[in-house]
Amino acid sequence: MTGYTLTRTVPHPYYETVEAVRAQLAEAGFGVLTEIDLKATLKEKLDVDIEPQVILGACRPQLAYQALEVDPSIAALLPCNVVVRSLDESTTLVEAFDPDVMMSFAGDNAAGEALREVSSDARQRLTAALAALTDEGRS
Amino acid sequence: MTGYTLTRTVPHPYYETVEAVRAQLAEAGFGVLTEIDLKATLKEKLDVDIEPQVILGACRPQLAYQALEVDPSIAALLPCNVVVRSLDESTTLVEAFDPDVMMSFAGDNAAGEALREVSSDARQRLTAALAALTDEGRS
Repeated sequence: MTGYTLTRTVPHPYYETVEAVRAQLAEAGFGVLTEIDLKATLKEKLDVDIEPQVILGACRPQLAYQALEVDPSIAALLPCNVVVRSLDESTTLVEAFDPDVMMSFAGDNAAGEALREVSSDARQRLTAALAALTDEGRS
Repeated sequence: MTGYTLTRTVPHPYYETVEAVRAQLAEAGFGVLTEIDLKATLKEKLDVDIEPQVILGACRPQLAYQALEVDPSIAALLPCNVVVRSLDESTTLVEAFDPDVMMSFAGDNAAGEALREVSSDARQRLTAALAALTDEGRS
């Protein structure tokens, strides 16, 4: 049931990884438009405890605009969520919504073709950002 | 290419409809965790003009928690976006991400079954909220 995300297990603590994800998203040309501290939200609303995790809503305005020009309904899929979740003290999971899923909504026409280009671009950028999180030499 | 949203065309102006959507989401048990003024964002970042529209990130904490217990990756699909977009001076489109799409990610097992229950509940609530926007007698 994880076919709709791009994932990366990072051998670093949670807070350090959250900051690294922000830096890599910026590097890849994404701004973070929204942020939900899921642990704090569920604690406040339901008084339940889950592992530390945050949902970052990433958006590359150029790509969003291109996609909206093709299909205004795409707004319902924006921004692209990148979830950072603590697995243990020294390991963190980073999971991004896979833009390929958007492609599955694309029709077999010119609009669909344009949408495939946009989601392919977004996917390459996200994949590079996630890969950089575990690259050797990252400070 | 609109098979992934629940939509409703509302015969009221944009700002009035945004407030009505907030009220109906609250009525249906959803909180709004995030909000993106898409028109303002694209104007600021790209200096382009699109029709007034906002993306409201709706979340029913009980459902979110149930879904996360079944599949932590579901966080990448939260919150549930409800987009309000101006069509003309007196007509507004409301478009919510269809929780049925989540079901398409569910496996044929106990976890999948639990996920189907959660998305079905969310879908009923969203459908009711959208229907109430055009009900007779709404003030």
